[in-house]
Amino acid sequence: MRIGVVAPSTPITRDVAERVTALAAAQFPSAEIVFHAQCFEVHNHFAGTDAVRAKAFLEVANDPAFDALWFARGGYGSCRIAEEVLGRLAPAAREKQYLGYSDAGYVLAGLYAAGFERVAHGPMPKDILRDGGDAAVLRALAWLVEADSSSLEPNLSGTDKTVAFNITVFSQLLGTPLQPDVTDHVLMIEDVSEHMYRTDRSMFHITSNPGVRRAAGIRLGRCTDVPENDVDFGETEEEVVRHWCERAGITYVGRADIGHDAANKVVPFGLTHKFLR
Amino acid sequence: MRIGVVAPSTPITRDVAERVTALAAAQFPSAEIVFHAQCFEVHNHFAGTDAVRAKAFLEVANDPAFDALWFARGGYGSCRIAEEVLGRLAPAAREKQYLGYSDAGYVLAGLYAAGFERVAHGPMPKDILRDGGDAAVLRALAWLVEADSSSLEPNLSGTDKTVAFNITVFSQLLGTPLQPDVTDHVLMIEDVSEHMYRTDRSMFHITSNPGVRRAAGIRLGRCTDVPENDVDFGETEEEVVRHWCERAGITYVGRADIGHDAANKVVPFGLTHKFLR
Repeated sequence: MRIGVVAPSTPITRDVAERVTALAAAQFPSAEIVFHAQCFEVHNHFAGTDAVRAKAFLEVANDPAFDALWFARGGYGSCRIAEEVLGRLAPAAREKQYLGYSDAGYVLAGLYAAGFERVAHGPMPKDILRDGGDAAVLRALAWLVEADSSSLEPNLSGTDKTVAFNITVFSQLLGTPLQPDVTDHVLMIEDVSEHMYRTDRSMFHITSNPGVRRAAGIRLGRCTDVPENDVDFGETEEEVVRHWCERAGITYVGRADIGHDAANKVVPFGLTHKFLR
Repeated sequence: MRIGVVAPSTPITRDVAERVTALAAAQFPSAEIVFHAQCFEVHNHFAGTDAVRAKAFLEVANDPAFDALWFARGGYGSCRIAEEVLGRLAPAAREKQYLGYSDAGYVLAGLYAAGFERVAHGPMPKDILRDGGDAAVLRALAWLVEADSSSLEPNLSGTDKTVAFNITVFSQLLGTPLQPDVTDHVLMIEDVSEHMYRTDRSMFHITSNPGVRRAAGIRLGRCTDVPENDVDFGETEEEVVRHWCERAGITYVGRADIGHDAANKVVPFGLTHKFLR
């Protein structure tokens, strides 16, 4: 089992790679984790220029010697290479697992929209820096290496198709070629560090989209580190999401166990049982 | 000439109404400006509940005794009533002028998408609080009352159709029923108080939209009060917009004289000459 790590948005430091490598060696000795050198490059805001990041992504995605492509971290920037990499994927890319969340959602969305079947939302190497981060990384590895069902978000039914996205990221890919068909899917959403009025605005955007209105329902993960509004918004994230679901005629199903934290669970896109061995 | 002012997003204070009324009385005595009482209501973040704001908007829009509906200010919230008000507009609403910018863009977009012909981006009453704000308000009134061409954005050709939007607002209405057809239009854009990575992300979103790719071109207004990134983004707003236009095959036409400031000019949606008397 070879897992290639690339950073389509912002860089990680060597200590993240070392800690993840050591943890994996101890707990999943059958897995070899290869951090592409691009993960440590720095170009302004990004882990290398767009060209460098796209090249690294394609090197791992198109190499049949890798079984999985693991996004190093979120941040911002995968949207800048999404069109380029999605247009240049070779057949080997289709066999691979993809795992990440947050900013990785642009590419995960595009892969799923293109019919890739092994795409999942879940923890990334940089999560090792969180409080309790080892558990997050081990959860991701247990999924990638052993398809361990204990890594999964507990509300996955196995019969409902599911996708999971960061609210802001999902909003910002609507109406682009990256937008996946979520008809009859449960859409799980979460966010971090967004003012509540921004989350409200994103939920307007998401629930006003005709494609999203064909979803089976919406489940809300955690919204953490919400900055205070200068005038208190007066509604919680669950009130906001319920409000927009009700207006749009989308079923609000309840909470989801995902978020920008160490407890963030794995959500395979599509039907979960297709992923389980 | 009767101008009705409503606040579909956040409230204004009485002193704004008094100053605008006094200025208008001195300079445009033929105009009567009626501030709907809803402008001063407060419900959490908003100028009254969604129901209150929608009702006020419809009272002015559907009343043939008003010649114009003037948005009191931006902020956040018109998206929450856009679907409701657009679905309940009477024939009298179609004869009216509409003027505003920033958050008002959700409703302006929806009106233009619905074929309304007298929709324009331009200064609002609350702009009177800006440095040099009297000039902004007088510019708006000169347009509403006299169709004064000196109020217009100077790059309007009279032969190219044009629309103007806040970057974030326009991004957040893509893929919703509010999205206007901008085929063969020059799209003028501006923003305020957004980190450059957010503007970059919005420009990804905007220029990746197939409808936007049919635009005749993009002109960039001012992006002001840009907060510092924790890692400097390394590109100016013009570099960001040029970058995305180039990728998307959209012509970058140059700068536009619009923005969140007292110099903000009027941009009629569609063909300018249709507005001029």
